[in-house]
Amino acid sequence: MRDVAIIGVSQTKFGELWDASFRKLVAEAGLKAIEDSGIEGDDIDSMFVGNMTAGLFVQQEHIASLISDHIGLNPTPCTRVEAACASGGLAVRQGIMAVASGMNDIVVSAGVEKMTDVVDPTPAIATASDQEWEAQQGATFPSLYAMMARRHMYEYGTTREQLAQFSVVNHKNAKNNPNAQYPFEISVDKVLNASVVADPLTLLDCSPVSDGAAAVVICPAEDAKKYTDTPIYVKASAQASGSIALHDRKSITTIESTKVAAKKAFDISGLTNKDIDAVEVHDCFSINGILAIEDLGFVKKGEGGKAVEEGQTERDGDFPVNPSGGLKARGHPLGATGIAQVAEIVWQLRGEAGKRQIDGAEIGMTQNIGGTGGTAAVHILGRDKN
Amino acid sequence: MRDVAIIGVSQTKFGELWDASFRKLVAEAGLKAIEDSGIEGDDIDSMFVGNMTAGLFVQQEHIASLISDHIGLNPTPCTRVEAACASGGLAVRQGIMAVASGMNDIVVSAGVEKMTDVVDPTPAIATASDQEWEAQQGATFPSLYAMMARRHMYEYGTTREQLAQFSVVNHKNAKNNPNAQYPFEISVDKVLNASVVADPLTLLDCSPVSDGAAAVVICPAEDAKKYTDTPIYVKASAQASGSIALHDRKSITTIESTKVAAKKAFDISGLTNKDIDAVEVHDCFSINGILAIEDLGFVKKGEGGKAVEEGQTERDGDFPVNPSGGLKARGHPLGATGIAQVAEIVWQLRGEAGKRQIDGAEIGMTQNIGGTGGTAAVHILGRDKN
Repeated sequence: MRDVAIIGVSQTKFGELWDASFRKLVAEAGLKAIEDSGIEGDDIDSMFVGNMTAGLFVQQEHIASLISDHIGLNPTPCTRVEAACASGGLAVRQGIMAVASGMNDIVVSAGVEKMTDVVDPTPAIATASDQEWEAQQGATFPSLYAMMARRHMYEYGTTREQLAQFSVVNHKNAKNNPNAQYPFEISVDKVLNASVVADPLTLLDCSPVSDGAAAVVICPAEDAKKYTDTPIYVKASAQASGSIALHDRKSITTIESTKVAAKKAFDISGLTNKDIDAVEVHDCFSINGILAIEDLGFVKKGEGGKAVEEGQTERDGDFPVNPSGGLKARGHPLGATGIAQVAEIVWQLRGEAGKRQIDGAEIGMTQNIGGTGGTAAVHILGRDKN
Repeated sequence: MRDVAIIGVSQTKFGELWDASFRKLVAEAGLKAIEDSGIEGDDIDSMFVGNMTAGLFVQQEHIASLISDHIGLNPTPCTRVEAACASGGLAVRQGIMAVASGMNDIVVSAGVEKMTDVVDPTPAIATASDQEWEAQQGATFPSLYAMMARRHMYEYGTTREQLAQFSVVNHKNAKNNPNAQYPFEISVDKVLNASVVADPLTLLDCSPVSDGAAAVVICPAEDAKKYTDTPIYVKASAQASGSIALHDRKSITTIESTKVAAKKAFDISGLTNKDIDAVEVHDCFSINGILAIEDLGFVKKGEGGKAVEEGQTERDGDFPVNPSGGLKARGHPLGATGIAQVAEIVWQLRGEAGKRQIDGAEIGMTQNIGGTGGTAAVHILGRDKN
């Protein structure tokens, strides 16, 4: 296994993009990442694309073929991977594996979702849960995370305001992200008084329905400086599976797959939470942001709400979380999210994050979750090769 | 990159399996392959699963999580790959890559599709074509392949009877396959007089709607004899992309992705068509079986129909094709097919194919196609390590 670097990244605007088709979005992201990296299309050995459910959103499967065709890269192999909202994280991971193995030298991993072409995306999103034991019984995603939130409040005294504050911090960061779906600030009051989606979660605890795409270009670490002066190195790539349904878990306030993947990632990299200067977590709902910082080990179990309340997760806090705005405010086009997280950390480590830059960030982390935690992908990236 | 072996294979019965759910099917295949290989569940480092469209067939995405959970293998990483009907072939390929890279030692790659739980599978299958430029204009899969067949007849003089004979040979082989959906013989007359699906193709030129699953267990070649006396070695794994839509191709009687992947596979393995004792090809329609033997190089372009008519593809012919019965008669649960092809070749090379055994088979090949050729996966397997 050889070391791997990221030499190009991109993200389209996330939002309700009525003028952009599925194929247009992913082509835009792919071509921008290629341009950012300094490679030529002919240099690409293979491509991976993360997408949750183009079949249900735009009646298109076989999207890897569609994409390699649409961007003019046939016969380059292109493979779709799917793991619900962690599809992007696994697409990065497959790309890293392809290069680390020596099978490929240059790989593009992209992620895309076009969610706004259906009247109601809820049934499609619910296919990330256990259809037979959860979705068919009427459980939607907000309701599943609402149960996790209510239990966390019961077990640890997490307050409604602390959950709201997670969204507030996200929006504060997104204000400085030109690609964010909601680049404006909100207040705790506004979250608390928004429409209830699934008690205790209101509309402003929930990530939105989004269109968008993102892409990264990966190459062997030893070749990276040929293409760019600012390669970012992959310190660890880890993946774990967990129970798809909530009822099968010992606890619904811990996401075991995150814990397992984070432990692996720290073991592989030899790093600890104290080394992480910026982390992008999977806050599909505010409660999941709080679970993430606990399960990744930034705070003890049950202390996530307090840490958010105290400002520890803010851009100038002890461990800055979601400088991009996170799923809540950057937007959450399902399959694109895991790639956009990596892109944000790359921009932060390059020092190219503009007004949302975390000063001197050297090591960053991403956590991407499928469903309510059935899949977790964790990556650690660093500015220095060694 | 290290050499890789297959140490366990399985296939469920293919057919209209009203008593088997999606998760039951894939669990059955996975557990049988594990048993066949002699490994324990704890030995598994990661899993890949090929599936085209559980989202549209059983309203379940995130199936890799569902599967690792249902067979009790959490937190082992499990990743779904999708490439329409080539999903299984790519799942094998990802498994091979994971072991070849040194990232994993033992990998299970499975494939599954449960197609019979919807009233009409045609719209779901059509998502493998270009939705905007083909499916939305009314093109179904039989109609696309019918155009390819008609053009092949026009360009090369291929006859209606030659197409029919491809199905006849498949059924002759399937008669001896206990897992086949249609284990009985048919005649050319029967094919010609069956209901027309899309002229010139009749019902008996078309692979059926099937439920089923299959799995393989992969490990480093150097470890294979620890687990089994009859490991089968991976000589090559190749993948290529081609135009997803027919109208973008120079010719609709050649599948370029097959040609590219076959050339790569022969280059990697140092073998030629003359070395292949058995080949499983992707005959979703009879015409595609004929295109396959041409594009893989067993006969010259245009001579496939004649070769079939002359008996060259029969079990005792010059180059036996589809000893399993192929997609037409073994059945075609989309995501399972690429894995079932590999399982059949493994049984043939082990000498365990019963009444359908090709005497002395030492080297075999599989060709798995997505859509009308937007993706191709080609594998070459051998009985000897070197």
